[in-house]
Amino acid sequence: MGAELLTIGTELLLGQIVDTNAGWMAQRLAEAGIDVHYKSTVGDNWNRIDAAMRLAMSRADVVIMTGGLGPTEDDLTRDVLAAVLGRPLVLDPRVLSAIEQRFAHRRVAMPENNRKQAMVPEGAEVLHNPRGTAPGLWVRQGRSALVCMPGVPSEMKPMLLDQVIPRLRTAFDIRSRIVSRVLKTCGISESALDERIGDYFRDMRNPTIGVLAHAGEIHVRLTCKGEDPGEIAARLDALEEKIRARLGHLVFGRDDEKLEAVVGRLLRARQSTLAVAESCTGGLIASRLTDVPGSSDYFERGVVAYSLEAKRRLLNVPADLLERHGAVSLAVARAMAIGVRKTSGAALGLATTGIAGPSGGTPDTPVGLVCAALAWDGGEGAREFRLLGDREQVKYRGAQMALEMLRRHLLGVPMDEV
Amino acid sequence: MGAELLTIGTELLLGQIVDTNAGWMAQRLAEAGIDVHYKSTVGDNWNRIDAAMRLAMSRADVVIMTGGLGPTEDDLTRDVLAAVLGRPLVLDPRVLSAIEQRFAHRRVAMPENNRKQAMVPEGAEVLHNPRGTAPGLWVRQGRSALVCMPGVPSEMKPMLLDQVIPRLRTAFDIRSRIVSRVLKTCGISESALDERIGDYFRDMRNPTIGVLAHAGEIHVRLTCKGEDPGEIAARLDALEEKIRARLGHLVFGRDDEKLEAVVGRLLRARQSTLAVAESCTGGLIASRLTDVPGSSDYFERGVVAYSLEAKRRLLNVPADLLERHGAVSLAVARAMAIGVRKTSGAALGLATTGIAGPSGGTPDTPVGLVCAALAWDGGEGAREFRLLGDREQVKYRGAQMALEMLRRHLLGVPMDEV
Repeated sequence: MGAELLTIGTELLLGQIVDTNAGWMAQRLAEAGIDVHYKSTVGDNWNRIDAAMRLAMSRADVVIMTGGLGPTEDDLTRDVLAAVLGRPLVLDPRVLSAIEQRFAHRRVAMPENNRKQAMVPEGAEVLHNPRGTAPGLWVRQGRSALVCMPGVPSEMKPMLLDQVIPRLRTAFDIRSRIVSRVLKTCGISESALDERIGDYFRDMRNPTIGVLAHAGEIHVRLTCKGEDPGEIAARLDALEEKIRARLGHLVFGRDDEKLEAVVGRLLRARQSTLAVAESCTGGLIASRLTDVPGSSDYFERGVVAYSLEAKRRLLNVPADLLERHGAVSLAVARAMAIGVRKTSGAALGLATTGIAGPSGGTPDTPVGLVCAALAWDGGEGAREFRLLGDREQVKYRGAQMALEMLRRHLLGVPMDEV
Repeated sequence: MGAELLTIGTELLLGQIVDTNAGWMAQRLAEAGIDVHYKSTVGDNWNRIDAAMRLAMSRADVVIMTGGLGPTEDDLTRDVLAAVLGRPLVLDPRVLSAIEQRFAHRRVAMPENNRKQAMVPEGAEVLHNPRGTAPGLWVRQGRSALVCMPGVPSEMKPMLLDQVIPRLRTAFDIRSRIVSRVLKTCGISESALDERIGDYFRDMRNPTIGVLAHAGEIHVRLTCKGEDPGEIAARLDALEEKIRARLGHLVFGRDDEKLEAVVGRLLRARQSTLAVAESCTGGLIASRLTDVPGSSDYFERGVVAYSLEAKRRLLNVPADLLERHGAVSLAVARAMAIGVRKTSGAALGLATTGIAGPSGGTPDTPVGLVCAALAWDGGEGAREFRLLGDREQVKYRGAQMALEMLRRHLLGVPMDEV
């Protein structure tokens, strides 16, 4: 059984909107055991939509379309579909009343145009859209299933998951599914990872293992195919356990967990507090930490000490240290961490200083050099990193390394183990 | 003359990589007067690539393909293209020597696989790829033109602009082109914008005007079609001048200019310096300002004063003010701006305090309430904003409003004019 995705809209075709729907749908369908073989986009043009629909129906059992269901003249999907199926459009009074209610709720008169959204091809089943005026459509024609959904991601996503995928699995008697799990690591190289778990990538068949490098992180993706959700989970659990036995604390999180959220959880669990002193990362560490809801429980303050004056005055970095070692040095990073910890009264002080570029590098302190340091009750540590990328990437990766230092400290494991 | 884009790769089809190439190519082609009618994606499967190529050739004069030119077994584009064209693959010795040189330069032996990248369909012209091992291909077959490019964006983009588009314009005698220009505004509502320039959107034909809302910004896009680049520029200039006459300082920048870069340029031009005190924006203002190369010239320091203690100690916010007005108040924002200006010695102090959510809101200080303030030599100002969105959006929009306050101050125009 093969599926084809057809996204409709001139703004998608011209790239004025990046089409994130098609990729998301393909992933969710693959997980539900439905293989996508083609993905196409057409503009708001009757003949081309007509041709694309007919072609898709000729080569796929399932055609999933998004877009073109709005109330304006450009929105042709519903009309073209009826024509391709050779069925009349009929008014669905329940859909009309749902649309009228939405407008009544907002105390706005329903424009006459929106009536069009209540017209459905005869025999089509309406997919309820609680978040918008455009309902979805589910139509069987012979062996095929045709689905239309609105293009707005927040309307489309729950419709696909809650209404379309269950119908497809029943209609095509699909039993298998694919489940992925991602284990995230930070501060280890791809080759070091290969040395530790390379035998698993090469030998495993189900689950399989893939490795993907992200900015400052390497992700290990486990993918398992099967029919029984319990058995799939058990297989993934078993492989995850084996990988964790080899990688230990190098795995900082799973799936959508972000490093700043993991660090925040550890700080909260230890009832610890943190203050951050940033030079080259320019506030990004503070901003990432405060993206996490509830971070005010452990994040005491941040200082962005861009000038020498700010390093001296706000963080008590001794002037002679700045002169002797230069602002970008392990000694200054260490003094910044100690300074922000002392002046804030937080349990931990984290600091960065470096050269984000694009200019300002020298042979001794090249662009991409970042020094990070952590101060705690009774000690401190500092490390130097040589990072690649443009200014924003160096900032991001520097923030990543500093957060990873903090995470390892909270777990009591050394930073230099990779 | 119509073009079709065909992106090849299972990872694109499955959504493991978001396809940003197709949209980018469609925009650049449209600007060069080449209309894209279809966009499709197929996985790394011989039969499906073959079918997709034949279909594209049957319905478009120009077929532009990306991906599948690498050295591995999955990379089929070159072989399928030769088969579809009915031409043999021949070794191009210059391509082989270029690939060998790349490896020699890195002091790595060339794997035997990479030889495959030097095979080209007979009669094809090779498109040089200075950034990678996969060369592009340009083939004429009858009236049609077929183009293959690598899928890596940094390799594909210069190839399209420098080699493919000029060849297409010559081959199809295309004279017209489309040029867009974006004027960016901040702190004005879409309806207020409509009141000021709505007559232009409705009446203009060439250039046309479109309006698009972004997070915290509204963009006005002018699009002009014509043959003579000088005439197009003159028409855009004339319309831009008319719009600027109506909008004045509300336009903060053009095309890719970011608000933080515009503010930075104004600070540098006035030889002014800035210190920032952030509560709800959590370091994001500092991070955005320091994303701009050279920001150390005017950005003195930032303070992320998340705790009451930090507001009191680092910014000298009086304890009774915090008690009387609460931390989220115009009075406290003003005191933070004054405090950070005084303690830093910077010419300007910018501050935010608010409720980013998702929890912590009350009827008086709901989630999304952000107070921003600016202090300067001889005065200060504060404003309250009620922003929509999740935690990260409130942070972003709050930062945006604070930066816009600063921009207007630097220009000497009031914040509340919209």
